[in-house]
Amino acid sequence: MNVDSLREQLPAGSVVTDPDTMEGYRRDSADLVPPGKPLAVLRPTTVDEVSTIMRWATANSIVVVARGAGTGLAGGATALDGCLVLSLEKMTSIREIDVANQIAVVEAGVVNADVGRAVAQHGLFYPPDPGSFEVSTIGGNLATNAGGMRCVKYGVTRNSVLGLEVVLPDGRVLHTGARTVKNVAGLDLTHLFIGSEGTLGVITSATLRLRPRPTSTATFVAGFADLAVGGQALNAIFASGSVPSMLELMDNATINAVEDYRRMDLDRDAALLIIGQADGDSALAEAEAIAELCETHGAEFAMATDDPTESEMLVQARRLAGWATMEQGPTVIEDVGVPRTRLAELLERIHRVSADTGIRIATVGHAGDGNVHPMLLLTDLADADEQRRALVAAENICSAAIELGGTITGEHGVGELKLPWLEQQVGSTSMDVQRRIKAALDPAAIMNPGRGF
Amino acid sequence: MNVDSLREQLPAGSVVTDPDTMEGYRRDSADLVPPGKPLAVLRPTTVDEVSTIMRWATANSIVVVARGAGTGLAGGATALDGCLVLSLEKMTSIREIDVANQIAVVEAGVVNADVGRAVAQHGLFYPPDPGSFEVSTIGGNLATNAGGMRCVKYGVTRNSVLGLEVVLPDGRVLHTGARTVKNVAGLDLTHLFIGSEGTLGVITSATLRLRPRPTSTATFVAGFADLAVGGQALNAIFASGSVPSMLELMDNATINAVEDYRRMDLDRDAALLIIGQADGDSALAEAEAIAELCETHGAEFAMATDDPTESEMLVQARRLAGWATMEQGPTVIEDVGVPRTRLAELLERIHRVSADTGIRIATVGHAGDGNVHPMLLLTDLADADEQRRALVAAENICSAAIELGGTITGEHGVGELKLPWLEQQVGSTSMDVQRRIKAALDPAAIMNPGRGF
Repeated sequence: MNVDSLREQLPAGSVVTDPDTMEGYRRDSADLVPPGKPLAVLRPTTVDEVSTIMRWATANSIVVVARGAGTGLAGGATALDGCLVLSLEKMTSIREIDVANQIAVVEAGVVNADVGRAVAQHGLFYPPDPGSFEVSTIGGNLATNAGGMRCVKYGVTRNSVLGLEVVLPDGRVLHTGARTVKNVAGLDLTHLFIGSEGTLGVITSATLRLRPRPTSTATFVAGFADLAVGGQALNAIFASGSVPSMLELMDNATINAVEDYRRMDLDRDAALLIIGQADGDSALAEAEAIAELCETHGAEFAMATDDPTESEMLVQARRLAGWATMEQGPTVIEDVGVPRTRLAELLERIHRVSADTGIRIATVGHAGDGNVHPMLLLTDLADADEQRRALVAAENICSAAIELGGTITGEHGVGELKLPWLEQQVGSTSMDVQRRIKAALDPAAIMNPGRGF
Repeated sequence: MNVDSLREQLPAGSVVTDPDTMEGYRRDSADLVPPGKPLAVLRPTTVDEVSTIMRWATANSIVVVARGAGTGLAGGATALDGCLVLSLEKMTSIREIDVANQIAVVEAGVVNADVGRAVAQHGLFYPPDPGSFEVSTIGGNLATNAGGMRCVKYGVTRNSVLGLEVVLPDGRVLHTGARTVKNVAGLDLTHLFIGSEGTLGVITSATLRLRPRPTSTATFVAGFADLAVGGQALNAIFASGSVPSMLELMDNATINAVEDYRRMDLDRDAALLIIGQADGDSALAEAEAIAELCETHGAEFAMATDDPTESEMLVQARRLAGWATMEQGPTVIEDVGVPRTRLAELLERIHRVSADTGIRIATVGHAGDGNVHPMLLLTDLADADEQRRALVAAENICSAAIELGGTITGEHGVGELKLPWLEQQVGSTSMDVQRRIKAALDPAAIMNPGRGF
């Protein structure tokens, strides 16, 4: 296939076929998913150009893989052989900030953290904050319905979206949703496209819902010598009715990975560390109450603070967890969820999986949502046996989550990596319904086939 | 068509064909939508029975109109000629309350307020509270993605749903979502069915997300002699970053309707009354700050209180608005939304529509969401000219909302009544996408045809 007829319709530089440059667009961050060789990489700057690309792709039956920053962990943006990689990286305009209505209209390629920075001066913030928020783009966040640390209070990506601009496979531009907080005009297409991992269309822009920045923030931390005891303390926090704005956990392996990476004076012997925040007018009182609750429920130590430097340091320890473990070698970052009272059971099961497969696993995650990331620490990506054991470990972790009433993916998506385990969770009727919707919206099956469902 | 072959498959009493009994199932609360004559009314008690009904309906190409309590205001549950009315009224089991995980699994026929009562003893509440919450059912709430007064802080119905049990047109039972707060396993079918107004399948049960009951509540009220001034005060509240748990408005006609209905000592001369609440540890301080903000922005009077009796009286005045106006004669209750800073403009436009059409209009609504209900007060449903003018008024109100960047329906749904105006809001591409999804999931087009989109 030759892309000259597409090249003619687009500005110079939009169509990349140079192998060296294309190399950088073949992978996302799912190391275990083998990347294909794209036909071309496209870097459109406008919705019209995306339409042109999609019309050409449909006319020529060429598969399209849309991508943001490539931080995805499930292979949803890994190139397929002969595909067009449609990178939204050049659609970086913040089209509008409506301060009074707390709305921002941003293009898909805008980096998450840049949205936050652009609205901060107006006393607003954009809650979804996936671990990759300094790198990952709104388009990728939308495609996977990304989560983050603030979800426990403010919800996931979909809870901060009012509407979308989407280019359909045939090139038509669809506008979904509204600029109002409430809207029930027709089927909710906004929510259908959020989390659809590029399988139904290409999200080019979104109308985001912003929130007033909290007046104040306080941080709490508690360490436990025993997983089960820590689990009980978490349950006590949930039962207390308190609504922290962050409630995270790190297991012993993660604590040590962070300490190895940067000295933070974390307790290397702790089985479980809980780090969280409360925000609003009574932030410190709430954080203190949670720390106290942890103490009465068996914490080795617990404290609360509203000192910004101390707070930042504690949150930093949590934020470093991913980078610190990735520093140790190749990793497979899992992403499972359970009803949150079953977290301790899940952590025990993960320990067992680690023992059974011989794969070291460090677990970090969003305790308040029951969503954790067991990070499988590998030594050598070329070691076929280790890779096989890693996949067994991942599969067993997913099975454990399902058995505990949970999900195989809380916020990273199915991509290609998790496809084999999806039906076990959702059942065959759901698979059929999803495929029917896919066939209705992408009849030529050119949108990221083999991904998502 | 004869329903004997269906009757044989169901318990005695499930299939009603007696005309007198059927009469009570022909209408919902949309007075302007002419009801059809159903073939039969079905009152299943289990999911299996719903499956049996749907299989029979598909085999015989019979249209199915699902209904809850019939409080819908857009004709989405009005009977069609020759249809099966599928009433979920007997599916009233609260299957489970998981206190620790703050989850309830309830059947479609459970009344909204009964969920609240069932979980209150556990210190929990179910936030969505449409005006009809003492009567309307969870199934109907889900079908329309119902709103209410607590949405401004806690979101609409879809924000409190984790998963659904749905019977598809062919009788298969689909389970969507999960029991976890976060879940991105596959396309989000939960959100597709919520708000789909019975056009894709029959929701038989839902996994609801509960919240901890607020520790305390305080109420504020403010009256304004001028609409525009009131609008500016609302904008000041929005800009302050405060997050009230309720923020409602009533215009002069509504105030007077309420006073006529029950003496509340409301100011009959006020152009606009704002009633709201704050909850949480600093509820009273927040309510006082909002009242003060109203005073500095031109309120004739403003006050805050955390006295439960006084609070209840004020909220009661707002809750009575719908009943009080309906008491005055036949009403058409509109439901439009705008970006919330444009509320005052919308109210001015509604006054103009009233003057132009000669239809009295009383407006009440959810100021915090920019969602209001202009209530068209008619004198005689048999008066064809008045009915025509009422439809013109409704159309002009919808057009005004769209022109102001808003929506023709914030929380009541499209049903049959609003279908003519939907494309003007969402565009032809959206209509096409919706129809494709419909065709994919309901190929025989038996699910509430002509409704929703």
